[in-house]
Amino acid sequence: MNAYGERLAAVVAQRGRLCVGVDPHLSILQQWGLPLDASGLERCAMTLVEAVADQVAVLKPQSAFFEVFGSAGIAVLEKVLGAIREAGALSLLDVKRGDIGSTMAAYAQAYLGEGPLAADAITISPYLGFGSLQPAIDLAVANGRGVYVLVRTSNPEGHEVQTARHHDLTVAQQVLEAGAAINRDHARIEDGVPGPVGAVVGLTHQALDIDLSRFAGSLLVPGLGAQGGTPEHVATLFGDQTPLTLPSTSRDIAEAGPDPAAIRRRTAEVAAALR
Amino acid sequence: MNAYGERLAAVVAQRGRLCVGVDPHLSILQQWGLPLDASGLERCAMTLVEAVADQVAVLKPQSAFFEVFGSAGIAVLEKVLGAIREAGALSLLDVKRGDIGSTMAAYAQAYLGEGPLAADAITISPYLGFGSLQPAIDLAVANGRGVYVLVRTSNPEGHEVQTARHHDLTVAQQVLEAGAAINRDHARIEDGVPGPVGAVVGLTHQALDIDLSRFAGSLLVPGLGAQGGTPEHVATLFGDQTPLTLPSTSRDIAEAGPDPAAIRRRTAEVAAALR
Repeated sequence: MNAYGERLAAVVAQRGRLCVGVDPHLSILQQWGLPLDASGLERCAMTLVEAVADQVAVLKPQSAFFEVFGSAGIAVLEKVLGAIREAGALSLLDVKRGDIGSTMAAYAQAYLGEGPLAADAITISPYLGFGSLQPAIDLAVANGRGVYVLVRTSNPEGHEVQTARHHDLTVAQQVLEAGAAINRDHARIEDGVPGPVGAVVGLTHQALDIDLSRFAGSLLVPGLGAQGGTPEHVATLFGDQTPLTLPSTSRDIAEAGPDPAAIRRRTAEVAAALR
Repeated sequence: MNAYGERLAAVVAQRGRLCVGVDPHLSILQQWGLPLDASGLERCAMTLVEAVADQVAVLKPQSAFFEVFGSAGIAVLEKVLGAIREAGALSLLDVKRGDIGSTMAAYAQAYLGEGPLAADAITISPYLGFGSLQPAIDLAVANGRGVYVLVRTSNPEGHEVQTARHHDLTVAQQVLEAGAAINRDHARIEDGVPGPVGAVVGLTHQALDIDLSRFAGSLLVPGLGAQGGTPEHVATLFGDQTPLTLPSTSRDIAEAGPDPAAIRRRTAEVAAALR
């Protein structure tokens, strides 16, 4: 399989850079008049995916909303990942896993291997140190997949950990530097191709307190829409400094449903505003 | 349901404080001559649980090894959690989840609610700030359950984040102080009853670089056995300073299998050495 960065650049060139979150929250199931069980979950998630997966570059299912229903929910997640693949979009599974050694390797195998939950990319969490994530990065590189490491999140409490300092760097910057060291060997910035290590950076900050200039990875930027982020703020915060910035929205899209045509229309509007 | 601290103190008083990890790693399945699929996973995990769940206080299934097999693996995890409950042990599900807002609330509902993956306690990760974990803490308190927050892990890379400083405190100490503020309202230290917020602290450190004196929560201490930790080192590091310290081992126990009698014998030996 081609490198993740190549695949991402290709699909974004065709479809634009909007990432649509697949967040089948119970409140959305309720709003759509669906039963609050795995069958309602499936209807909601598959409606979203079938509506937009041929229209946007990246879909981001949020694992938590599937885990709520145990194995029945995870079976729905398997279907969702398959449907995203068939429609030619990339799946960025939001699982925020982070562990060490053979456990981290098992998470990598679960989501970046060839099993039923294989995704094109996943989010991972570096509380145990960036080095602990190496098994996921290695498998991602080997299998043409990507990882998005939590760096600087959108919530107000994030700074307690993310702006703490180790030697001269904040935790967030240190994670970026470690990711940059890997991306350097894979990215072709001049062609708009990012490396396999992405970063999660929220859209709610007034200004960035991190330096992305050497990162050479794509950015997942949650917070567009319901959380208050605008396309203009995406441009203000990120400009042209990274090869690929993927603003992500979910609630706004889901609330346009359950009519697939309305979901597609809303998605097209948000995508157009991002140009 | 009684508070988690009460339930933990009661079962530890009866059975001792050893926590046995249920880590059905592929290498263990291979060693036991089991198929490398969900049926082998089930045989391995259920053999471990049935062998020791009436003998130890706490069993800690590692979610990653179940997630590898997708929904079929998660169905096995549901059975494992049910079998632990029926045998009168507490389940401490190692999932290291950490997210924000409605997503964190969904993780809490998945594991600390009443669904098929309900556990007595879970591990959680504070990269997004301790405050982001509040939905899990609230539901744990409401439902008589516990959470174990990653604080100071056993792996060599952990210090990059965990000893970074925010104002005058390390990230690890800051997490402990935030947990202590919650435990204060729930713990009855004089009776050996900890609060609902536990901490994960590895056993591999030569000396502790955190102050646990005011924490008032139980400690999950991985690293006994295969990772090199000894019962003597548990005593050296933790002394009597916390109401309940739960040293955890997994590989040593699993490698005694697949004979249930041998698993029980090895478990009894490790438990006896901890007294």
